[in-house]
Amino acid sequence: LYSRFDAHELIAAAHSLVSPRGRGVYATDEAPDVMDGTLVMAMEEAGNRHTRFTEEKRRERRKAWKECVYSAVPSDHISGVILHPETLHTFHLAPLLSDRGIIPGVRANAELTPLPRSEDEFLVEGLDGLLGRMQAARGEGARFSKFRVPIMCGSVTPGPPPVPVESTENEGGDEGGQKKPYTSTVDTSTIFPTQLALETVAETLARFAAISQQAGLVPIVEPDVDFSRDADLARSAEVHERAIALIYERMRAHGVLLEGSLIKPSFPQPGLQHPSRDKVTAEEIALATATVISRSVPSAVPGVLFLSETATNYLAKVNQLALNSPPGSPFARLPALSFSFGRALQAEPMKHWVKGDEEATKASLVKWSKICYDAVLSGAVA
Amino acid sequence: LYSRFDAHELIAAAHSLVSPRGRGVYATDEAPDVMDGTLVMAMEEAGNRHTRFTEEKRRERRKAWKECVYSAVPSDHISGVILHPETLHTFHLAPLLSDRGIIPGVRANAELTPLPRSEDEFLVEGLDGLLGRMQAARGEGARFSKFRVPIMCGSVTPGPPPVPVESTENEGGDEGGQKKPYTSTVDTSTIFPTQLALETVAETLARFAAISQQAGLVPIVEPDVDFSRDADLARSAEVHERAIALIYERMRAHGVLLEGSLIKPSFPQPGLQHPSRDKVTAEEIALATATVISRSVPSAVPGVLFLSETATNYLAKVNQLALNSPPGSPFARLPALSFSFGRALQAEPMKHWVKGDEEATKASLVKWSKICYDAVLSGAVA
Amino acid sequence: LYSRFDAHELIAAAHSLVSPRGRGVYATDEAPDVMDGTLVMAMEEAGNRHTRFTEEKRRERRKAWKECVYSAVPSDHISGVILHPETLHTFHLAPLLSDRGIIPGVRANAELTPLPRSEDEFLVEGLDGLLGRMQAARGEGARFSKFRVPIMCGSVTPGPPPVPVESTENEGGDEGGQKKPYTSTVDTSTIFPTQLALETVAETLARFAAISQQAGLVPIVEPDVDFSRDADLARSAEVHERAIALIYERMRAHGVLLEGSLIKPSFPQPGLQHPSRDKVTAEEIALATATVISRSVPSAVPGVLFLSETATNYLAKVNQLALNSPPGSPFARLPALSFSFGRALQAEPMKHWVKGDEEATKASLVKWSKICYDAVLSGAVA
Amino acid sequence: LYSRFDAHELIAAAHSLVSPRGRGVYATDEAPDVMDGTLVMAMEEAGNRHTRFTEEKRRERRKAWKECVYSAVPSDHISGVILHPETLHTFHLAPLLSDRGIIPGVRANAELTPLPRSEDEFLVEGLDGLLGRMQAARGEGARFSKFRVPIMCGSVTPGPPPVPVESTENEGGDEGGQKKPYTSTVDTSTIFPTQLALETVAETLARFAAISQQAGLVPIVEPDVDFSRDADLARSAEVHERAIALIYERMRAHGVLLEGSLIKPSFPQPGLQHPSRDKVTAEEIALATATVISRSVPSAVPGVLFLSETATNYLAKVNQLALNSPPGSPFARLPALSFSFGRALQAEPMKHWVKGDEEATKASLVKWSKICYDAVLSGAVA
Repeated sequence: LYSRFDAHELIAAAHSLVSPRGRGVYATDEAPDVMDGTLVMAMEEAGNRHTRFTEEKRRERRKAWKECVYSAVPSDHISGVILHPETLHTFHLAPLLSDRGIIPGVRANAELTPLPRSEDEFLVEGLDGLLGRMQAARGEGARFSKFRVPIMCGSVTPGPPPVPVESTENEGGDEGGQKKPYTSTVDTSTIFPTQLALETVAETLARFAAISQQAGLVPIVEPDVDFSRDADLARSAEVHERAIALIYERMRAHGVLLEGSLIKPSFPQPGLQHPSRDKVTAEEIALATATVISRSVPSAVPGVLFLSETATNYLAKVNQLALNSPPGSPFARLPALSFSFGRALQAEPMKHWVKGDEEATKASLVKWSKICYDAVLSGAVA
Repeated sequence: LYSRFDAHELIAAAHSLVSPRGRGVYATDEAPDVMDGTLVMAMEEAGNRHTRFTEEKRRERRKAWKECVYSAVPSDHISGVILHPETLHTFHLAPLLSDRGIIPGVRANAELTPLPRSEDEFLVEGLDGLLGRMQAARGEGARFSKFRVPIMCGSVTPGPPPVPVESTENEGGDEGGQKKPYTSTVDTSTIFPTQLALETVAETLARFAAISQQAGLVPIVEPDVDFSRDADLARSAEVHERAIALIYERMRAHGVLLEGSLIKPSFPQPGLQHPSRDKVTAEEIALATATVISRSVPSAVPGVLFLSETATNYLAKVNQLALNSPPGSPFARLPALSFSFGRALQAEPMKHWVKGDEEATKASLVKWSKICYDAVLSGAVA
Repeated sequence: LYSRFDAHELIAAAHSLVSPRGRGVYATDEAPDVMDGTLVMAMEEAGNRHTRFTEEKRRERRKAWKECVYSAVPSDHISGVILHPETLHTFHLAPLLSDRGIIPGVRANAELTPLPRSEDEFLVEGLDGLLGRMQAARGEGARFSKFRVPIMCGSVTPGPPPVPVESTENEGGDEGGQKKPYTSTVDTSTIFPTQLALETVAETLARFAAISQQAGLVPIVEPDVDFSRDADLARSAEVHERAIALIYERMRAHGVLLEGSLIKPSFPQPGLQHPSRDKVTAEEIALATATVISRSVPSAVPGVLFLSETATNYLAKVNQLALNSPPGSPFARLPALSFSFGRALQAEPMKHWVKGDEEATKASLVKWSKICYDAVLSGAVA
Repeated sequence: LYSRFDAHELIAAAHSLVSPRGRGVYATDEAPDVMDGTLVMAMEEAGNRHTRFTEEKRRERRKAWKECVYSAVPSDHISGVILHPETLHTFHLAPLLSDRGIIPGVRANAELTPLPRSEDEFLVEGLDGLLGRMQAARGEGARFSKFRVPIMCGSVTPGPPPVPVESTENEGGDEGGQKKPYTSTVDTSTIFPTQLALETVAETLARFAAISQQAGLVPIVEPDVDFSRDADLARSAEVHERAIALIYERMRAHGVLLEGSLIKPSFPQPGLQHPSRDKVTAEEIALATATVISRSVPSAVPGVLFLSETATNYLAKVNQLALNSPPGSPFARLPALSFSFGRALQAEPMKHWVKGDEEATKASLVKWSKICYDAVLSGAVA
C-alpha cells in the first residue's frame, strides 16, 4: 500500500498538521464559482456596485486573493492549507505556502449525486481517476488531501412513507405474462441517515483514504453531519458516533494506515428545527463531542480537525474538557482537537481585501488564526 | 462440516420432506405445559369439568394423545412430524412415525430472552449444548430439526423515543472525576424490527443450521414475523424479504449446505392494528409472498413450509400463482411451497379425542391433512 | 428509485433480453483501440500488409464494421447488442438495431485501477458521472447497460508473504518522537481473491445497478473470474459462489429491482496453471456452474448470460442439465441460461469483412448466432 | 439497556478495576477439576504421595485454598478477583473479597464446541440463560464478569486443502433424481483464523457484554489468541488487530456502554513453531502490542488487562513505552495497561500451601502481586 519511506512520511505529515498543539488547518478549497460569489458579496457589502467581471478577470481576482492571504498565513498558528485543484494546478501556489513552513493539501472530492435508493441523501463522486489526480497534486507540492461527504440527520420521527409500487396486474404479454412484483424495494423509512447512506459514506471515504496514501498524501476524511433538521443533541451525537465508527471499520478493511490520516468532523448539535437549538450550551456540545470522539476515533489517529464555521466556542470548550480531565478519564486520552476553518478565518480579511487594503487583510488573517489557536490552547472564547 | 455420506443423506431427507408435491409437515412440538393447556381447553369446550390432573396423569395424557394421532398421520399427505424433545426422548415415539414412512424431527430452539439493546425484541436460546442434543435426537430417530425465532414488525411510524441518559455531572471521585458520557448508546429508534434484531436472528439461525447438519439433521429455519402491530402488507413483505435474505447470508457464511435445508416462514400480511387487515385479499397476500420468496430464498433450497395456522387459503393462492405462472416468470421457478401446520391439522381431531373417540380423531386428522395437501396441489380453498 | 412506469419497463426489457429461450446478447463494446487492433490483426492474417491508418480512417473503419454486422444481427437468435459509448454517441447506431427488434445497450464501466491494499487486484472506475451518462445513453436509444469487474482467483496455496513494514526506531523529531507503528496494515495474505476485493466488486456493481435503473436502463452486472492461475474447479466454483452471493447482498442493500436486472458471469473452471485444466469435462463444468447459480443468483433475476468466449460447449451442457433435471431439483428452477459473446460470434465474420466480402460477413454472423442459440436450446455442440 | 444508575455504577466499577494505575485483576476461575489437578501436582512436586481424595474432600480443599489466598489479596495491588461460579455460589466467598475492598467477578463463558465449518476452531457456549446467571452472580456480590474465547492463529502458509465433496452421480431416486451438488461449501482454506471464526468470536463476546451490563456487571471480554503455531510477530499482531477491532464493531452494534467495559487480550507474539520465537525481544512485543491497542481499542474503554501468564516482562515494557512516549504519540493516549494473571500470582503461594504453611502462602501472594504491580508502574522486570 505504501513503501516504508512513505509510511514514515505520511505519519510525519499527519503529525505536523496537528502539532504543536493549537495549530489548525485553513480551508480554502471553495469551488471557483463559490469563491467568485463570496468575493462579489463582500464587494457589494462594501458598497461596490461594479462587480460584474469577465471569466478572465474573475480568475485573476481569485488568484490575487489567494496570493494575498497565503503570503500572510502564520505558521505558528496554522499548520496547513487546503487548496482547490485550480489553485494548485493553475495558479501553482503550493510553494508560496511550503516555503513558509505550511503544508499544502488538496480537495479530492468531486460532485454530489443522489443516492438512488434514498434520493434526499448523496453519493459523493471523485474516486474515478483519483490515484492520478493525487499523484499530480503531490507533484505540485501537496502533502495531504481532503474528501468531504455530507450526512443527512433527522430525528426518528419520520415523515409520511413513500407510496409503494402498486400491485396492478400486468395486462400485456411482453413480460411473458409474469406478475409484476408486489412490493417496492424502496426503503419505506424516511429516517435520516439511512443505513445505506452511512455505508456508502464509509466505503467512499475509505477508498479515498487508501488511494490518497497510495499517492503519498495524508488523507483527511470529512464527514459533515447535517444540522438543518429536527434532530436533538442526543440524536446528532448518536449519528456522529455511528458514522465515524463505520468510517474507521471500512478504513481498516482498506488497509489505511491510521497513524498517517486525520479526520475533519462536524460538532454534534441540535438541528435548526429542534426547540433545544437555542438553549443548548457549549458545555453540552463539548461533552457530547468528547464522548463521540472517545468512542469512535481510534487512538492511532493523531488528530481531529473540527469543521464547523461558527464553532470557536465549542472548540474551546471541548479542549478545556480534554485538558482538564483527570488521568484515567477517556477524555484525557483524546487526540489533538483542533480546527479546519475557512469562513471563520477569512470573512473579516476579505472585507479588507475588497477595499484594496492588503495589509489590513493580512493582519486580520493573522488575528483570526490566533483566535482559533488560542481557543484550542486555552479555551478562551473569542 | 458433513461427510459425503451425510451430504447425500441430508439432501435426500430435505427433498423427501417436500415431495411428492403437496406433502407437508405436521408440527406437534408444543411445550408440555402448552399441550396440557390445549387439551384442558378442548375438554372444557366439550363440557368436561374434571380437568385437574396430576403431573403424572398429564404426562400420560400427552403421550396417549401423541400416540393416537401419530398412528394416524397419513404418509401420502404428510411427509414429516416435528416432535417436542419430551415426545422424542421420554415417550420414544419417533419409531411410530418412521415405521409408517414419515420422517420424525425435533424442536431445537429453547427460551426467549430480551435483546439487551431493544428489550421488546428477542434473543432465542438453544445453541448451548446443541450438537450433543442433535446427536441424541438423531439417535432417537430424528432426521430433521426446527428452530423458531420471532421477529417484531411494525410500521415506520415509531412511538415516542426513549429518554436518553442525562448528562449530569459526576459529583463523586470514584470514577477519577471523569465526566459521565453524554449520550446513551441505546438505539433511539423504536421501529421494529431493528437492524440488530435481524442480525441476531440470522446469526442464531445460521449457527443452528450448521450445527444441525453437523449432527446429520436437516435444519428447518423458522423466521416468524409478528403481525400483531400496525405494519401494512408492503411493510410486512419488506421485513420478510430483509429477514430471509439476511438469514441466507449468514447460512452461507457458516457453510450450511442449502440443498439439505428448508425454511418455515410466515406469510407477509397486514398487522392486526392496520386498517387494511380486513380488506386484504388472499391474492394480494399470495403475490407478496411469491415476490418475497423469489427474491430471498435461494433456488438451491428445496422447499418452503409456511407456518401460518389459518393460512390454507393463502397456501392455495400462492401455489396457484406458482403453478400458473408462464415459463420465464420468477414465480415459475419457486421451490416447493407447502405447509408446516399444527393447530390447523389437530384442532378438530382433539375435539374428538377428549371425548374418547379415537377413530373419529384419526379420521379427522386424515381429513385435515388432505385439505392442506389439496390446497398445495390444486389451490382448492378449504 | 424508479417510477411505476420504469419498473414495468425495466422488467419487460430484462425479460426480453433472455426470451424466448435461446436468444442471447452480442457483445460489441470493445474499446476503440482494441477494436482497431483486432481489425488490423484480422487484416494481417488475411495477408494484407497495408494496415496503418490515420485516426480518422480507423474511426471510419470501426463505424463501417459495426454498420455491417449490426445490419445482419438476427433477432430470432440475438436479443440485444452491447455498444461501446463511441458507437452509441458518435456513430449513433442504436436505431440500426432497435429498428430491427434488437435491444441496444451500453458499456458503463471505465478503467481499472489497482486496489491499494492488494495491488494485483482491481478497483473498477466508471461511477463518477454515471447517472448523466446513463441518461444520455437512454436518450440515444440504449435500454440496458453492462459493467464488468475482473476478479482474481488462485488456489489457497499462497506465494511468499510480502515483507512487513520494519520496526526501526524513528531517529528524527518531526513526529514528536513517537515510535513508528510496528506492523504494517498490508494484508499478509496473497490468496486471491481477498475479502476486500470481493467487497469492493460487490459494492461497485450494486452502485452501478442502482444508478442504471435510476436512469431507466436494465443493469447487467459482469463478474469475470480469472482463470489464468492455479485454482482447481472446486476453488473456482467456491469463488464464483461467494462473489455472486455478495453482489446480490449489496444489490439488495442498494434497493436494486432484481426482476429488472441480469447477470453476466464467467463459467467456473480450473485455472490454466492447474493440472486438471486439460482433463476437466464439460459435464463437470456444467454441474459446478448449475450448483453455483442455484445457490447464489436469486430466482427473481430473469436470466444469466455467460461471458466465456470459447464456451459454447459448456453452455450446451449446463442447459442440458437444467432442461433434463426432474421437477424438485434445484437445477429445474434455474433462470434462463444464455450467452453474451463477442469474439465467438464475430471472429469468423471479421475474416470475411477485412477481405471486403460483406455478404459473407453477414452470413457468418447469422451462422454463429444460430450455433450459440442452438447450444442453449438443444445442447448440440458446435 | 441500563438505567442511569446502572450506567454510573458500571463506569465506576470498570474504572476501579484499573485504577489507581498499577492495580490488576487476579484470575482464580479455573474449573474445579483443573483446580484439583493443579493442587495435586503441587502436592506431588512437594513430595506428597497421598493425593487421592474423595470428591467431598476435594471440594473442601478447593474452598480452603481459596479462603486462604482471598484473605491475603492485597487491595493496594489487586483491584478485583475473578471467581468460578462454584466459588461464588457454593462457597459464597465474594464477601471475603469485597469486605477487603476488592471487587469480586465471575466467569461467564461455558464450554467450547467445534465451529461446524472449520472444526479446528471453536464456538464458545455460555449465552443460554446468561441473564439469569449474571443476575444471580450479582446477588452473590459479583460486580464484573469475564468471557474467554480462544482464537486460532497460524501463518498464511496453509496446510493441504481438504478434499472437496466429490461429484459422483446420484444413482438412486430418493432425491427425485437430482444431481448431487458439485462443490462442497467447506471452506477450502485452512488458514487460521478464518473470517467466520473472527465473526463468531466478536458476536459471542458482544452478546455476552450486552447481557452482562443488562444484569449490572462490568463485562471483561477475553480474546485469547493462540501462539502454539507458526505465525510470526507481524501475523500475530495483524490477527490481534482484526479480532479486537471486530469485537468492538459488534459491541457497538449491541449497544454496549464502552466506558463500563474492559478487555483482557493476549500479547501479540511469534508462535512456538516459528523460528523467531526465541529471538524476539520484549521491546518488539511491546511495540507491536501498543500499536495493536492504539488501533483497535476505543479510547472510551478504561483499561486493558493482559492475560499472558509469563508476561511480566512484556507488561513492563509496554507500560514503559506508554509512559515514556511524548505527547502527540498514539502510545501516550493508551488506556490503563495492567494485568489479569492467575498462575503467575499463585504458583509459588501454592507450593507453600500444600505444605500447610498458610503464612508463607499469603506472603508469597502479596509478593507476587507487588511484582506485577511494579511491572505496570515502573517497568521493572521481575
